[in-house]
Amino acid sequence: MNALNIAEYVHALGLQAKVASALMARADAAIKNRALKALARLLRDNAQALAADNAKDLERAIAAGLSAPMVDRLRLGLKAIETCALGCEQLATMPDIIGEVVGLKQQESGIRVGQMRVPIGVFGMVFESRPNVTIEAASLSIKSGNAAILRGGSEAIESNKALARLVQQALAEAGLPQNAVQLVQTTDREAVGRLIAMPEYVDVIIPRGGKGLIERISREAKVPVIKHLDGNCHTYVDDPCDIAMAVKVADNAKTQKYSPCNASEGLLVARGAAARFLPQIGAVYAAKGVEMRCDAEAQALLAPLAGAQVVPATEQDWSTEYLAPIISVKVVAGVDEAIAHINRYSSHHTDAIITTDHRHAQRFLREVDSASVMVNASTRFADGFEYGLGAEIGISTDKFHARGPVGIEGLTSLKWVVLGNGEVRG
Amino acid sequence: MNALNIAEYVHALGLQAKVASALMARADAAIKNRALKALARLLRDNAQALAADNAKDLERAIAAGLSAPMVDRLRLGLKAIETCALGCEQLATMPDIIGEVVGLKQQESGIRVGQMRVPIGVFGMVFESRPNVTIEAASLSIKSGNAAILRGGSEAIESNKALARLVQQALAEAGLPQNAVQLVQTTDREAVGRLIAMPEYVDVIIPRGGKGLIERISREAKVPVIKHLDGNCHTYVDDPCDIAMAVKVADNAKTQKYSPCNASEGLLVARGAAARFLPQIGAVYAAKGVEMRCDAEAQALLAPLAGAQVVPATEQDWSTEYLAPIISVKVVAGVDEAIAHINRYSSHHTDAIITTDHRHAQRFLREVDSASVMVNASTRFADGFEYGLGAEIGISTDKFHARGPVGIEGLTSLKWVVLGNGEVRG
Repeated sequence: MNALNIAEYVHALGLQAKVASALMARADAAIKNRALKALARLLRDNAQALAADNAKDLERAIAAGLSAPMVDRLRLGLKAIETCALGCEQLATMPDIIGEVVGLKQQESGIRVGQMRVPIGVFGMVFESRPNVTIEAASLSIKSGNAAILRGGSEAIESNKALARLVQQALAEAGLPQNAVQLVQTTDREAVGRLIAMPEYVDVIIPRGGKGLIERISREAKVPVIKHLDGNCHTYVDDPCDIAMAVKVADNAKTQKYSPCNASEGLLVARGAAARFLPQIGAVYAAKGVEMRCDAEAQALLAPLAGAQVVPATEQDWSTEYLAPIISVKVVAGVDEAIAHINRYSSHHTDAIITTDHRHAQRFLREVDSASVMVNASTRFADGFEYGLGAEIGISTDKFHARGPVGIEGLTSLKWVVLGNGEVRG
Repeated sequence: MNALNIAEYVHALGLQAKVASALMARADAAIKNRALKALARLLRDNAQALAADNAKDLERAIAAGLSAPMVDRLRLGLKAIETCALGCEQLATMPDIIGEVVGLKQQESGIRVGQMRVPIGVFGMVFESRPNVTIEAASLSIKSGNAAILRGGSEAIESNKALARLVQQALAEAGLPQNAVQLVQTTDREAVGRLIAMPEYVDVIIPRGGKGLIERISREAKVPVIKHLDGNCHTYVDDPCDIAMAVKVADNAKTQKYSPCNASEGLLVARGAAARFLPQIGAVYAAKGVEMRCDAEAQALLAPLAGAQVVPATEQDWSTEYLAPIISVKVVAGVDEAIAHINRYSSHHTDAIITTDHRHAQRFLREVDSASVMVNASTRFADGFEYGLGAEIGISTDKFHARGPVGIEGLTSLKWVVLGNGEVRG
């Protein structure tokens, strides 16, 4: 397609999505759940065919010389397909929040005023690599009564097309409009530029991918963006605290997995706990090959450990998301300095305190300006499933609309309902 | 100031607001309420001096040939000052929602997860004309624990400066940072361009004013905008309905005041009710000099009325916000056509149904895609005070974040709190 054709094509997708969104908004819960269960069945019935389509993408990726981790992210094996199917079934069993009315109260005038939860309308999703995001986004869109326009990465186009066909089949089986979930069928980048600039059709854009992609979309979008930039998360070990718990949690927060956005990249330690805590966690990190980038005080305590990779931290380290076996380590005076450091350097994603002091815990919860704040828990818990949202469409590091893991609720809005008996304004 | 100086000046306001916002976010409810009560007292104590400052603006406005309604909007009389003072006192008596934790539930892993209501941070407000908006915005900002940067219209600069001085005095008296509310002291338009493009300091922009202002700001802002465009509101008179109630409500919705955004601009009538209802409401409108722009069916019923100003409606009329003694009138088949017409032509602000049919009421509430949907009440109720919000910073016709009247809650965000006992992710 040339640029003009792409503009027309994306425009048509937008119009179709808008029309479908009105039907989705009033669809019964039972019918949406029927579509989700049909999708789960179709995924299982077509698992072999999906794997074959995915093989085409994998072949192309290997031929193009993509790195092994990239190829791995692209893989849609039988196990991943089963996980997608289970996710759809789980969503089907969750309560439907559309139409729920909250806070209905009578006012002085006699009218009763409350708020009704309604779908946002149409969301556009731009994502890279992992084809199972197609199913996650489609199923959340169906459950939340929205329409979605999905734009996956060019490397996964065959997989995504095959998955989108099944989604539309499931919608049709349930009696819902097929255009409620549409995949952008061209890999031309021009299509993204169009998709993010149609406020008449698209209510919000959700990008998922590298920082470059998200920054570009935020800059160019003409509609609101639910965006997730860095995950520079911290664990702060307070004085007083349970040192054994602190070691266990700081270990998990850094080493359970290195690549997720909710892994801790910075470790802060209260001066009063440093001499007891740092040698213990240092031994754990040393055994796992985690490099420690330290301020002078932490370095003095950690450098003597056998096998520890200890190097001085630079100013740059405090704001870096490593996504690797590296952690920055700093000794602070106490909870005040910890909060100040986090509010200055963290990416406002997730930060945790390990403490036994109630007042410190309360202050940390209240004053740390991050999407998730935790007491005595691993930052790795910052996740839609772990928070009981059923699924997540993304994690927002913004404060506006949705913050932190975004589930079905983040894809909805509240409109006001007023129930009267002929009241007029005086 | 030249452009470079303005850039530096607005940048400094942003940095100061950011610093102040951290202090406001953790301020005790009692201290914020003390500032609000101090502001009420200062407004009353300085009412004469404020009126004198306001007189300078009025003089300049009259000399510049501003229209009488414009001059009137600019006027800050003793009564308006007392209303501002009462508003501050009312906010001081309202519960503080900052720090409130909702939905705390234990998850499978053992962690307890909930959401804490927190201020958004810094909001920028750009408004025209009415200087009392300075006090409304300042008091809502204080109560919600945010910092605000206010940019009023150049025509009200002396009044706004005097009001802002009192706000900062009240903040200081209560022990809060004076920079929690700052007024942009230059009337140069360049300052607005800067204010709306500082995502590092300003979290959201709230424009209040004409459609031109709001469209320009939405187009150029680099941060989210809570925007309010048209108020093309409808009253739909259903079949069956209580005709006497329908006449009373449709009268109030159009004629109680012509200029507010929540006045009805369109009247839809079910065919089965038209012959009884239209002559009655037509007589009321005729007596009040309201012009009726009608489709053919409505015209046939209304034209014979003595003194009625009845003209044929054009396609343009269905989407017009008159803000004047004019209303469009259309006969529809029933609730289906009414919903379709409203979703096509309304500005998604406020729409009402007058009905005695439960199913029609439910369908209207659910399917009309507007910020406020009403049953048997006047659209004129769409207002923060009438909804029990205490005050409103504006009315949003967006779906994202806040929809409809925006009170304190719309100036807040929810962050996740996780309370653990040393849990780690497996």
